Amino acid sequence: MDSAQREVLQEVEKAWPQQVAYLQALVREPSTLGNEAGVQRLMQGTFREMGLEVHTFEPDLGALSHLRGFSPPEWGYRGRPNVVGIWAAGGTGGRSLVLNGHVDVVSPEPVSQWSYDPWGAQVVGDRMYGRGVLDMKSGVSAMVYAIRAIQAAGLRLKGNVVLQSVIEEECTGNGALACLDRGFIGDGCLIPEPFPEVLVAQVGVLWGRIKVRGSAAHVMSANRAVNAIEKTYALIQAMRELEARLNKEKHPAFREVAWPINFNPAILRAGDWPSTVPAECTLEFRMGFYPGTSAQEAQAMIREQLLGAAARDPWLKENPPEITFFGFQAEGTVVNFQESPVIQTLNAAHQKVTGRALTPFASTATTDSRYFLLYYNIPATCYGPRGAALHGIDEYVELPSVLEVTKVIATFIWEWCGLG
Amino acid sequence: MDSAQREVLQEVEKAWPQQVAYLQALVREPSTLGNEAGVQRLMQGTFREMGLEVHTFEPDLGALSHLRGFSPPEWGYRGRPNVVGIWAAGGTGGRSLVLNGHVDVVSPEPVSQWSYDPWGAQVVGDRMYGRGVLDMKSGVSAMVYAIRAIQAAGLRLKGNVVLQSVIEEECTGNGALACLDRGFIGDGCLIPEPFPEVLVAQVGVLWGRIKVRGSAAHVMSANRAVNAIEKTYALIQAMRELEARLNKEKHPAFREVAWPINFNPAILRAGDWPSTVPAECTLEFRMGFYPGTSAQEAQAMIREQLLGAAARDPWLKENPPEITFFGFQAEGTVVNFQESPVIQTLNAAHQKVTGRALTPFASTATTDSRYFLLYYNIPATCYGPRGAALHGIDEYVELPSVLEVTKVIATFIWEWCGLG
Repeated sequence: MDSAQREVLQEVEKAWPQQVAYLQALVREPSTLGNEAGVQRLMQGTFREMGLEVHTFEPDLGALSHLRGFSPPEWGYRGRPNVVGIWAAGGTGGRSLVLNGHVDVVSPEPVSQWSYDPWGAQVVGDRMYGRGVLDMKSGVSAMVYAIRAIQAAGLRLKGNVVLQSVIEEECTGNGALACLDRGFIGDGCLIPEPFPEVLVAQVGVLWGRIKVRGSAAHVMSANRAVNAIEKTYALIQAMRELEARLNKEKHPAFREVAWPINFNPAILRAGDWPSTVPAECTLEFRMGFYPGTSAQEAQAMIREQLLGAAARDPWLKENPPEITFFGFQAEGTVVNFQESPVIQTLNAAHQKVTGRALTPFASTATTDSRYFLLYYNIPATCYGPRGAALHGIDEYVELPSVLEVTKVIATFIWEWCGLG
Repeated sequence: MDSAQREVLQEVEKAWPQQVAYLQALVREPSTLGNEAGVQRLMQGTFREMGLEVHTFEPDLGALSHLRGFSPPEWGYRGRPNVVGIWAAGGTGGRSLVLNGHVDVVSPEPVSQWSYDPWGAQVVGDRMYGRGVLDMKSGVSAMVYAIRAIQAAGLRLKGNVVLQSVIEEECTGNGALACLDRGFIGDGCLIPEPFPEVLVAQVGVLWGRIKVRGSAAHVMSANRAVNAIEKTYALIQAMRELEARLNKEKHPAFREVAWPINFNPAILRAGDWPSTVPAECTLEFRMGFYPGTSAQEAQAMIREQLLGAAARDPWLKENPPEITFFGFQAEGTVVNFQESPVIQTLNAAHQKVTGRALTPFASTATTDSRYFLLYYNIPATCYGPRGAALHGIDEYVELPSVLEVTKVIATFIWEWCGLG
């Protein structure tokens, strides 16, 4: 490591208290779906302060809906911008880089189960607690402070760095897709999602909705009615069977993963009167599937499983469930650890900073990296800080890992782009 | 049948077109919980037009909550009055009578499944369709037009008739309880609920709520999380077992009833994000129980069943469901057909009008008659028009049965009170 590089890492250390405060500011923006404006104003301010060329724009459904990898939302994009900041190269001959992070977070409900304010960003020992602190505002802070450290050391890079602060990662991915469609691309991409090892594979993910019809009746004759809640349970069972089968017939990239494919019966709504047999039950679910299967093929597989189960039930046979898909229609990816230049450079940077090589990680969730890999042919991966309970109760990040990741990313950036 | 009586029945016939229009006006008031003001204004106008002494008052929770038979609501009574109309006796020596009908109706959802506007009161052939047309606005029209016919024939009765138009029959019964607590009582009571035969027994009914905790997590690790929706199904199964056991060990009054005790898993709410394992699931249910079991004993039985099932599940054992009760805490009743003066007089009236004796009916639902029977020692029963799908889709009444019931009730009134 030369002295310029050492200086960068010292700048990361020096700025660490500010980075922690910055991360707190990010977490204190409750940027759930539809409420990202506040955090994006903050990101815009950050990018301006860093002297980047800033682009703020809402995803345009008309432009996106014909693209490969598009997921149909059931919500709009007004007031919900992406923010892109470009740090122009100070030299030539290097590679350009996209650093992408999402600022949307999932709901913290049931908040009553939390021990900490999900929007409080409270620091307890080495941990910071809050919704989104791990997934993935720590990663966003790392990419920002990695660049800031290079700037603070007075260095320039030989390739552009494009910082993408995107919405919609948690539901469609259309935020990242909109950035790529607008031409905010690069020779490689790193997304500091909270994976302490490096992403080489990710499952595909579908969101869907099952609407089951029962026959409403006064509870006095409930034994002759059909309860939509209980009929829905039969379909949950059918999906559990599909899940079990897929986990038995594992894709090679997920051989080491105990349970790669997860079905989640997630949101259930039924009934409106205790003494009326519920005539309708709606279940929203999330289902994983393997790389190599298209989203359309996965939809067909799910339909077949559900309608097959329905056909074995006298009521559901006559009243088959309505099956629709919305949100994530995300396809899976597989990358060769040895052949990905981004992974190789990142691994070298990781070894330089930590003395330890990264190991390949196959994710049972999806990330925005799929767009770069599948539809824009840009080498990409995810790697980021350590913590627990993302999407759960008392989500937290281990702060020392954020500091380490920031150093690794700073090192990766200059190795990838080259110092100018 | 003497000529005065014949004249009354002719007046019922004569007023039939008006009664149908009146019933339509009642049905077109969408008097679901909290929205009874409109229909009660209509009832107030009716009672005034009939020359009754009218009392309009909201149930007073403070006064009611210490009474036997009280059910705890989770809503208030402001703007939701009962309306009572008293037709003072025109002679002495007769018996007084309460005619009680509820004007609250249950939600028509899912409206999309209806073939008719639930608030349209459309007449198709011999049927009128609409939410509440059967349960029990037809009965209300019958009690009003029975009195109107007696009045139109220029007759007076030897006992007071107290017409009670009450709220809350579908959820607590506190409307009827408030009438009785205010002293609006009588020597007997008839409630024209839509039972084409005469009520001799009714089950008890409890409403309750089960809150089940899971462990929220990102769906990527769903296999290590606990899905609150699926844990709730285990408790539904436990309640189905209790239901089956109670239906096997039948109360003698329900020997002829195929399935007297109904459990209804009615309203289920869980989750708020497709990719998050739901950490909480709330189920509202309705459960029947036999006469002779107190509401408290029934609560204990349900708790025991649910906590017993929870104890057999490793997660639920450590995280037992929260079980609470709200709304109906209604106890069951049994009456001897031969010994009830109201039933005997009604049966005679029915035979006079239709030529056919009534048969005893044991109801798998509760009615407001329980207050009269259990806590005020007033002989009471229910009897009324024929139809189908109460609390269901495309609820309707058979209009000819409404006409017949109106005649039977008119006959019953003069037989019970005596013509002055």
